Amino acid sequence: MRRARAHLDEILLDHAHCEKKAAGAAIKLLFSYPHHRFLQEPVADLAREELDHFQQVLGLLDRRGIHYRTLKPAPYGSVLHEGIRRDEPERLVDVLLISALIEARSCERFQILTEGLAETDPELAALYGSLLASEARHHRLYLDLAARLVDRGRLAARLDELSRVEAEIIAKPCDRVRLHAG
Amino acid sequence: MRRARAHLDEILLDHAHCEKKAAGAAIKLLFSYPHHRFLQEPVADLAREELDHFQQVLGLLDRRGIHYRTLKPAPYGSVLHEGIRRDEPERLVDVLLISALIEARSCERFQILTEGLAETDPELAALYGSLLASEARHHRLYLDLAARLVDRGRLAARLDELSRVEAEIIAKPCDRVRLHAG
Repeated sequence: MRRARAHLDEILLDHAHCEKKAAGAAIKLLFSYPHHRFLQEPVADLAREELDHFQQVLGLLDRRGIHYRTLKPAPYGSVLHEGIRRDEPERLVDVLLISALIEARSCERFQILTEGLAETDPELAALYGSLLASEARHHRLYLDLAARLVDRGRLAARLDELSRVEAEIIAKPCDRVRLHAG
Repeated sequence: MRRARAHLDEILLDHAHCEKKAAGAAIKLLFSYPHHRFLQEPVADLAREELDHFQQVLGLLDRRGIHYRTLKPAPYGSVLHEGIRRDEPERLVDVLLISALIEARSCERFQILTEGLAETDPELAALYGSLLASEARHHRLYLDLAARLVDRGRLAARLDELSRVEAEIIAKPCDRVRLHAG
């Protein structure tokens, strides 16, 4: 938290990109799986929310005079996606579970930021506090969607495997200050 | 209009895909041009609206018991995009102008549908009537964004060229019943 507090500009920029990437990933799902009708509405809802968050963070960047620019991302997302299985429905199950894990990790990080910034930066603490609930909801949604594709036992086993990979990535020190970094 | 009225299921399915594609194209702009800060909010707004429309059409498909499935699109979009120039900022100008033309054509088609269905299918006529205004707004937005990149004279000349290409595509008979087809 001390490191994040010292690099809030970078955290905010990274956050803007994360929201945009989350919207992009959701739209990609809509295009890749048109035959999965059950995905369409909830994922479109989610994409709209991510875009709304993206715009909220852009607004905050503007108010703070932070120039919106691209950042080299943490290896987190790309390493996680390397493990995606190739065949369907395993591929989609993995994509959904990884999205669920990312949302859960965001939720954890937003919680830390909400508490850690409550006194020093109430505006930012309020933003992260307001986003917490939707990250938790998105996490749940991705799990529920994955549960439509495989039985409970296989889902839990795969979630467990991917969670361990995710935890390992987060445990590795990262030289960049990012939302999803160790 | 007679042909559309006889194939309303296809028109609705095509419409759902068009809204999704419009959202996808908008998100693509956000990713391709992060350095164009002026694009980010308005295009994110537009993407959210297109997703909302997509969901509205999905709801209508459900209410009418139409199975959501992919359709072979009209050649319209792909032919239009073939003419995009390669270098920047010409490339972005073309992408924006083509999007503006697509929105204008949608607007025209929605107008025809609104009037043509007023008596036989008031629910659908109302939907198209409600979407008309946003298509017109999106058309204007894309033109305004393009106007940030080149001067008025060059913009008008290029819009004129692309409009002629667009009109030629629409003039060609198409064996598929689609929103953007002759």
